[in-house]
Amino acid sequence: MSERSFLPIVLAAGLGTRMQSEMPKVMHEIGHLPMIGHVLNSLKMSNADRVAVVIGPQMDALEKVVTDLSPNVSCHVQTDRLGTAHAALAARDAMLDPADDVLILYGDTPLVTREAIGTVRAALADGADVAVLGFETKKPYGYGRLLTDGGQLLAIREEKDATDAERRITFCNSGIMGFRGKVVLELLTSIGNDNKKGEFYLTDAAEIAVARNLNVVAVSASEEDVQGINTRAQLSTCEAVFQRRMRIQTLEGGVTMQAPDTVYFSHDTVIEPDVLIEPNVVFGPDVHVERGAVIRAFSHLEGAHVGSSATVGPYARLRPGARLSEGSRVGNFVEVKNSEIGVGAKVNHLSYIGDASIGAKSNIGAGTITCNYDGFGKHKTDIGAGSFIGSNSTLVAPLTLGNGVFVAAGSVVTEQVSDNALVIGRSQQVEKTGRAEALRTRFKAAKDAKSSGTERGK
Amino acid sequence: MSERSFLPIVLAAGLGTRMQSEMPKVMHEIGHLPMIGHVLNSLKMSNADRVAVVIGPQMDALEKVVTDLSPNVSCHVQTDRLGTAHAALAARDAMLDPADDVLILYGDTPLVTREAIGTVRAALADGADVAVLGFETKKPYGYGRLLTDGGQLLAIREEKDATDAERRITFCNSGIMGFRGKVVLELLTSIGNDNKKGEFYLTDAAEIAVARNLNVVAVSASEEDVQGINTRAQLSTCEAVFQRRMRIQTLEGGVTMQAPDTVYFSHDTVIEPDVLIEPNVVFGPDVHVERGAVIRAFSHLEGAHVGSSATVGPYARLRPGARLSEGSRVGNFVEVKNSEIGVGAKVNHLSYIGDASIGAKSNIGAGTITCNYDGFGKHKTDIGAGSFIGSNSTLVAPLTLGNGVFVAAGSVVTEQVSDNALVIGRSQQVEKTGRAEALRTRFKAAKDAKSSGTERGK
Amino acid sequence: MSERSFLPIVLAAGLGTRMQSEMPKVMHEIGHLPMIGHVLNSLKMSNADRVAVVIGPQMDALEKVVTDLSPNVSCHVQTDRLGTAHAALAARDAMLDPADDVLILYGDTPLVTREAIGTVRAALADGADVAVLGFETKKPYGYGRLLTDGGQLLAIREEKDATDAERRITFCNSGIMGFRGKVVLELLTSIGNDNKKGEFYLTDAAEIAVARNLNVVAVSASEEDVQGINTRAQLSTCEAVFQRRMRIQTLEGGVTMQAPDTVYFSHDTVIEPDVLIEPNVVFGPDVHVERGAVIRAFSHLEGAHVGSSATVGPYARLRPGARLSEGSRVGNFVEVKNSEIGVGAKVNHLSYIGDASIGAKSNIGAGTITCNYDGFGKHKTDIGAGSFIGSNSTLVAPLTLGNGVFVAAGSVVTEQVSDNALVIGRSQQVEKTGRAEALRTRFKAAKDAKSSGTERGK
Repeated sequence: MSERSFLPIVLAAGLGTRMQSEMPKVMHEIGHLPMIGHVLNSLKMSNADRVAVVIGPQMDALEKVVTDLSPNVSCHVQTDRLGTAHAALAARDAMLDPADDVLILYGDTPLVTREAIGTVRAALADGADVAVLGFETKKPYGYGRLLTDGGQLLAIREEKDATDAERRITFCNSGIMGFRGKVVLELLTSIGNDNKKGEFYLTDAAEIAVARNLNVVAVSASEEDVQGINTRAQLSTCEAVFQRRMRIQTLEGGVTMQAPDTVYFSHDTVIEPDVLIEPNVVFGPDVHVERGAVIRAFSHLEGAHVGSSATVGPYARLRPGARLSEGSRVGNFVEVKNSEIGVGAKVNHLSYIGDASIGAKSNIGAGTITCNYDGFGKHKTDIGAGSFIGSNSTLVAPLTLGNGVFVAAGSVVTEQVSDNALVIGRSQQVEKTGRAEALRTRFKAAKDAKSSGTERGK
Repeated sequence: MSERSFLPIVLAAGLGTRMQSEMPKVMHEIGHLPMIGHVLNSLKMSNADRVAVVIGPQMDALEKVVTDLSPNVSCHVQTDRLGTAHAALAARDAMLDPADDVLILYGDTPLVTREAIGTVRAALADGADVAVLGFETKKPYGYGRLLTDGGQLLAIREEKDATDAERRITFCNSGIMGFRGKVVLELLTSIGNDNKKGEFYLTDAAEIAVARNLNVVAVSASEEDVQGINTRAQLSTCEAVFQRRMRIQTLEGGVTMQAPDTVYFSHDTVIEPDVLIEPNVVFGPDVHVERGAVIRAFSHLEGAHVGSSATVGPYARLRPGARLSEGSRVGNFVEVKNSEIGVGAKVNHLSYIGDASIGAKSNIGAGTITCNYDGFGKHKTDIGAGSFIGSNSTLVAPLTLGNGVFVAAGSVVTEQVSDNALVIGRSQQVEKTGRAEALRTRFKAAKDAKSSGTERGK
Repeated sequence: MSERSFLPIVLAAGLGTRMQSEMPKVMHEIGHLPMIGHVLNSLKMSNADRVAVVIGPQMDALEKVVTDLSPNVSCHVQTDRLGTAHAALAARDAMLDPADDVLILYGDTPLVTREAIGTVRAALADGADVAVLGFETKKPYGYGRLLTDGGQLLAIREEKDATDAERRITFCNSGIMGFRGKVVLELLTSIGNDNKKGEFYLTDAAEIAVARNLNVVAVSASEEDVQGINTRAQLSTCEAVFQRRMRIQTLEGGVTMQAPDTVYFSHDTVIEPDVLIEPNVVFGPDVHVERGAVIRAFSHLEGAHVGSSATVGPYARLRPGARLSEGSRVGNFVEVKNSEIGVGAKVNHLSYIGDASIGAKSNIGAGTITCNYDGFGKHKTDIGAGSFIGSNSTLVAPLTLGNGVFVAAGSVVTEQVSDNALVIGRSQQVEKTGRAEALRTRFKAAKDAKSSGTERGK
């Protein structure tokens, strides 16, 4: 099909009032990607040369999002909202530059697949002037029914105009339509608004084309591929479909998941084969996990690279810029941000590692905190290879510790430490023999006084 | 319907032996509310003037629970357990005071909705003397079947007495019945116990009423609304229905949830519009989240108020008395208890904040601990606005820090700090150059000695 | 049935290439037990005297796993892979020693139940020479269909050889077969390889037996019981079935789970009655929870013993060797490893307790770290009864603290502490009045310089 030129027009001007949100509807995210991004991705896989997106007025944020996502997008503003045909005609400029295949899609129908797009284009390549994408459903109520005869589309019948027999038809209109580039503008501009709402409906194009004896066909996609989003509930339903697709794809790639239904992916998550993922793991945007790594339960990763055979979690949080080298370990209640963990290095417990670089085979004790922030700027902590940071240490950046350094537990380290040095920054222990009892008596008396004070206060 | 007076009688005397628990069955919780509380809530929404609850002997704890939940409840003890009609008659006193509508409900049928209750009452308002609430089910086995003729109830046929044809009936008895107040006592006292178990069955009231040519009708609710609980498995099924209802209601209120199925609500959770909730969040009792806040993955909230545009988690635990002001942040592995976090203040990592007040825009470094407990009493930590608490600090309460204070990382602070003071409570770092190697040699030798000792010991 | 001797032969030589893994297929785990272990468990419950397992060449790791799991297993190597009958004959030695019932099972069909095995054996006990285990399915495509006449098996028809009518049959071959011990070897050795792939198929045994007028019957198990695993997706499906079975069994044992679908069990998890489990809990191998304990949300337990009425979590991680005594508490962001927590003792917040023993009623403050590792060996921390460890303390092992000890918050403790002593190991607080402002000016200037430097560098 690659020899045919292709212009998709994505309608995205809707306000989405039923979302109860101030954000344009198509910017709501699925798998951490604005829903319109999923449409653009499927179009990219379909080798669209250029994409026309129709947005509403004052939707600069949306325009920025779509042009950032796809360099070959042109945005067209629909000033008034007078129906789908009117919206499509907002991209008239794009249609003037002729394409073999022109498809109308929707920014709020994000699960449309490359296959569904291919089905419509194949119909056009086979000689159709207009190709309407339908779907079979068990719950046709409310949808326009596709009246067909052997693949030819006779009419699109709206619910309110349908006879009882027509209402029993379960083949419905997805709204997605393909046009031979030569006829699209002529058809769209022929659509009138002689109806109750006074709007221009894209579906009328099918009827007009039939009346003109053009070749109008109906093709089919799965209901799932063409479901639209009008509410937060539908948004979450589509998110669930997206997650299911990602889980299947990940399993097929040779990844073991004990409970795939509890693992959440971002649209761009990359997991290599023979990775093991335990239950309840969340992948935010931009994560890559290399072969043989283990992601344990309750871990949360964003913007992180996990090297081969590394172990993460349980309860590890990797934030943007976390880079775990081969065989390294980041354990429970550990947060890593913008830091490199060297080959075989370990940060196993209750630590915050920010803006740091930890050398190969170094061991960071439980409760270690890198103090990277002074209220204004962020500073770097450099730890060499083979160093041992005793538990509950406080490392005040900017700070450089050499190779083979040993930091005594509970130390506060503020100055550079040379290779193989032992460093201590803590107080001497003082025992006051038998004094605990006196202390308890005092604390208990204070508490009793307080309670009695409270009671008196009543 | 409000002009008709309404007396619901809730049967709650059952021991629930199949729950394998020492607690009365109706005290087991759904959404952190004892299941009978859900019935009382639906009755409250149905404008019940007063509610009679029939409990068993020695169920003082249950009596306290229901009277705490609803001020207009009267409890009636069923001394012996001689069947449902006998149980209802335990509330005879309540029935002596006449009401237009008398309904018999069950403390172990917690999902009954206001709509289902309204359906029964509407039938009474329409002239029925007795109205039996039925439900359609695909699995009628074991239920009494409702034999009807155009809405009139002819009989309730128990499984064991049913013909093959009757067994194929899928319209079943929920047990919930409504009575015209004028006939209820007369009907209930006419029920005999001439049956195998010698018990008084409420369902017999229908047959007696039919025999007397009273107007006996069957009305219908969904199976879900009237499911009863006898086992822990059924308890978890009802909990799942409750959670689904809460999720739908929350989505409809303009809240985004990426994975609604992984968010657990309490019966009293309040979430305002445009809140974003990530996967795997648990709301315990008494939580209110204001508009625009973000609750990130793996967070756990109880008794907490989250201000608008605040960010919680991932992995944040808010305990009772946590009050987060507008735009504040509580991050990963942070526990907040009985503390106020000021406008725009941040507690981003690995901290325990208990019995504290943190001023606006203050920043609490990673690993900071408020030491609020001395083994006897709890003490308060007050931190002013715009202060910076260095990482891994220990704040020993009672303690007051002023505005604009700067605490050096790793400090132990025990005394009051004045505005804009710098405070340090840590030791000087001492480096012992080249000594790490000697230390490693010593540790390694100790380990080798230990291993060899272990081997010799074999 | 116990008087009949029983020899099961488990075929486990497959490489499982579709798993995309270097590990033999049957070693992939379900509920933390290699899948073949589930088959061995069902055989143990079926009182198998001995079990023959057929493995592939170079599968020493698998041989070790199965012999560790079950002492009465003999392993037999199938050198070439020439079909299922050829595989079964690898265990010829085991069959030479006669058994009444010989069953062929599969290491990659792990959900086979004792009941399914009993069904096949009952058919043999009833006089069958060959008993084929079938299952009803809605999706028979691809399976061999069982052609039967009143329980007698007429033929097993492969998909490719089936007529349209036969393809509509929904009773399919599970592959599991039982043989009268006297005929098994004779039948298996009669199987030829005159087919496209030149392999010896076990299913041919049925046809040969029918041709010889032996008594060949078809019996039935549920589809779930006999599903095989070829892919990671099927592995996760079987894991889900296993988890569902464990959840039902746990609920039936009197345990409350608010969201059973979010609780993950290991094959050996033991939970006593009246335990409450909140959502999102993961049990790794070897966990026992005693009566009345509460396991709160987001907890992760492995190798742990939780005493009666103890409370765990939320966000607690118990690692191997964690032993919580009656009424003790381990709270949020706490890791416990190889440690005893005494009766009523509390470790409520943000702590690491490793290789320690904590006496009854002792209280470990938030942020306490036991420093058990020096880079080489692990050392023990002993804390007596009724002691109070102030928050953010660092306990450097080996270390012994007596009874009734009070450690001041923020202390580093390195030396033994006697009973009832107060111990302090921290610096004096120094206030530099008004100096915070100067510091802020300096930090801000440094940041500005850095930013401007960065800009110049562009």
